[in-house]
Amino acid sequence: MKKTLIMMIFCSSFIVSANEVKPAPNGITLPKGYQGWQVISSSHRVDNHSLRVILGNDIAINAAQNNNTKPWPEGSILAKLVWKEGKLPNWQQAIVPEEFIHSEFMIKDSKKYSKTGGWGFARWLGLEQKPYGQNENFVQECFGCHTPVKNNDWVYTIPSILPKPSK
Amino acid sequence: MKKTLIMMIFCSSFIVSANEVKPAPNGITLPKGYQGWQVISSSHRVDNHSLRVILGNDIAINAAQNNNTKPWPEGSILAKLVWKEGKLPNWQQAIVPEEFIHSEFMIKDSKKYSKTGGWGFARWLGLEQKPYGQNENFVQECFGCHTPVKNNDWVYTIPSILPKPSK
Repeated sequence: MKKTLIMMIFCSSFIVSANEVKPAPNGITLPKGYQGWQVISSSHRVDNHSLRVILGNDIAINAAQNNNTKPWPEGSILAKLVWKEGKLPNWQQAIVPEEFIHSEFMIKDSKKYSKTGGWGFARWLGLEQKPYGQNENFVQECFGCHTPVKNNDWVYTIPSILPKPSK
Repeated sequence: MKKTLIMMIFCSSFIVSANEVKPAPNGITLPKGYQGWQVISSSHRVDNHSLRVILGNDIAINAAQNNNTKPWPEGSILAKLVWKEGKLPNWQQAIVPEEFIHSEFMIKDSKKYSKTGGWGFARWLGLEQKPYGQNENFVQECFGCHTPVKNNDWVYTIPSILPKPSK
């Protein structure tokens, strides 16, 4: 019994099984395979003690690499993965991801989402990926928080600088 | 002239051109295309004020997803991208990557690197990707720093928990 429990805990790390994920209240469905997207940047929010990794689909990555993000092109999807901050057991001065909080997305479609800066917003909570929001008005909360970055195409993330890939 | 200078600065973000990158003093060559690898974790080192994103090649990602990291399988490559910490202009409580410091790698080959825990170490500095180390003895510095995690197959990184990708 004890061994089984230990095994269950052990096997729960990194990736947890998910069945059908419900769409967000505004109809946006969870982008498939976002876990494998290329990284755009990361952040540590010291106000709410969370660590974030920001990924992008191919259109977004191409835009970031070519400095074509003002505005981001149609079809861009930005994924933000958010964890509670923890400490690395063997290096306490390294703040690292601990419990998974949510994944959230911005989807660029200027016509479809013209009322919210051309971006569709959606969020799924926890490893069970429960859609965030009681009804479609939840996007007003997302959009409101992004108002300070209206002049950056409503996006907080600034793509991190990286060496160019060799050919 | 001024316009050209502004364009040059503007175009330097995210990814910077690199020509031939020299191998590390121990003969390890820079893994191609690491910028596109899948993310394993991230960290914020508050002791040296740096932000890190840890990526893995396919073997390492598969190992992380299947909790098969003690030890990491042969052929695993872990890439750590390191930036100086900065602050997001529109959200000062978000610590984000600023200047690119270096990329560093651990390559699992138990026979080839038997003297350093089965891992080959290498690091390239800055956007110009200059090999780190005066001679092959530089790996003793890498290996020494990893001694506290000997029991974690010499690896500090703990793969972050993520929802399992849907099929």
